[in-house]
Amino acid sequence: MAGFSDSYHLQIGALIFPGIDQFDFTGPFEVLSRVPNATFHTIGLDTAPLRDMKGLILTPEKSLWEVPPLDVLLVPGGAGQVQLMEDASVLSFIRQHAAGAGIVFSVCTGSLTVAAAGLLKGVKSTTHWASFHLLEKLGAIPVNQRVVVDGKFVCAAGVSSSIDGALRVAALLRGDRIAQEIQLYMQYAPEPPFQSGTPETAPVEVVAAARGAVSALTATREAVIERIAAKWQNGRK
Amino acid sequence: MAGFSDSYHLQIGALIFPGIDQFDFTGPFEVLSRVPNATFHTIGLDTAPLRDMKGLILTPEKSLWEVPPLDVLLVPGGAGQVQLMEDASVLSFIRQHAAGAGIVFSVCTGSLTVAAAGLLKGVKSTTHWASFHLLEKLGAIPVNQRVVVDGKFVCAAGVSSSIDGALRVAALLRGDRIAQEIQLYMQYAPEPPFQSGTPETAPVEVVAAARGAVSALTATREAVIERIAAKWQNGRK
Repeated sequence: MAGFSDSYHLQIGALIFPGIDQFDFTGPFEVLSRVPNATFHTIGLDTAPLRDMKGLILTPEKSLWEVPPLDVLLVPGGAGQVQLMEDASVLSFIRQHAAGAGIVFSVCTGSLTVAAAGLLKGVKSTTHWASFHLLEKLGAIPVNQRVVVDGKFVCAAGVSSSIDGALRVAALLRGDRIAQEIQLYMQYAPEPPFQSGTPETAPVEVVAAARGAVSALTATREAVIERIAAKWQNGRK
Repeated sequence: MAGFSDSYHLQIGALIFPGIDQFDFTGPFEVLSRVPNATFHTIGLDTAPLRDMKGLILTPEKSLWEVPPLDVLLVPGGAGQVQLMEDASVLSFIRQHAAGAGIVFSVCTGSLTVAAAGLLKGVKSTTHWASFHLLEKLGAIPVNQRVVVDGKFVCAAGVSSSIDGALRVAALLRGDRIAQEIQLYMQYAPEPPFQSGTPETAPVEVVAAARGAVSALTATREAVIERIAAKWQNGRK
């Protein structure tokens, strides 16, 4: 995969949408906007400003139809991802660019959008811990790792894993040395103040509270995915 | 410091500006927009959309003059921070809100802006590694830690340390349990792909390249800081 020459100008594009988790996008933006000899495109369903799950205003600069062929397609997640899984324009955009891209990089529940486009069947993948059980319903092979690379597909798990994933993508694009320079610029030598970053390590009450907080959204996500899977099943008959 | 009751509605405000490093803001936004019973204000010099160092469009929702008294003031950094250090409106805004705030949270070179407002004299502080030597010129006490807490002042070092700092701030505001829930939501169990996050750990050539890339900006920053320090010196005579 990848293996671009340094003189080749890379086209990197990220899909943003209402209800995105902004960090799934801004984390990778911080890394990938610093890859040498590359243009970063921020792509929306249209070019209207939109709000993330918590109200942050983000502004796309290109609509789905204005994007040149991409070498890297970034698909973030977040609550608003649920609608995208049944949005024919979005699924078609993803399929079209994924076909030519060297890397399809999903973050968090963005992998479920890529999976809904039918692209992760038999592909090793991951997603946010609360949605991990949903991946296989769309034919993906779930792997409980922070970053999973399978061919052209790079999947990062929940939210902040987007940084680890983006540094991996930068290294695939331009080599370890460039990724290390970006890491140093970002002073990325993390020191989490608590051991609470995964369901396996967080205190039991914290896991219960966090699961409770996302349970309604996870149920909605599951219902949509069951519908898509059923449609695929019927299509196959 | 801090110690707000759960029933007290917190006002959290972040200053954004042209040439900000977006991650210094969006990292903490991800954490602090999830603190219970709080409003997060995104504050600009005016309310016009602006671009970060790498072109990301961010949109403030309030100008400097439209902000209620803040309990938490977040001051991010980035290349555009240089201008703010001599901007009387910004310095006055910072002094005014810092006086009443329970927490003044600076990220990256944002601490130099807070220092230029005269607020870090004799205060333990940190900043991005490339500007670390500049802190003491503005009277701060530099401490080479990722997050430094001294009284109401919380300083995070470069860029990505904003996450560690923001989780500390969340814990100060609402207790460890809330911070742990936010950490779990964000799946913040980092696995940097390289040992390249600090000048002490990165490969020598990587440090040299990264220093070279920021040297012009650091020199400009230093010139402005020398000018401010000289003004203070003359004022004292």
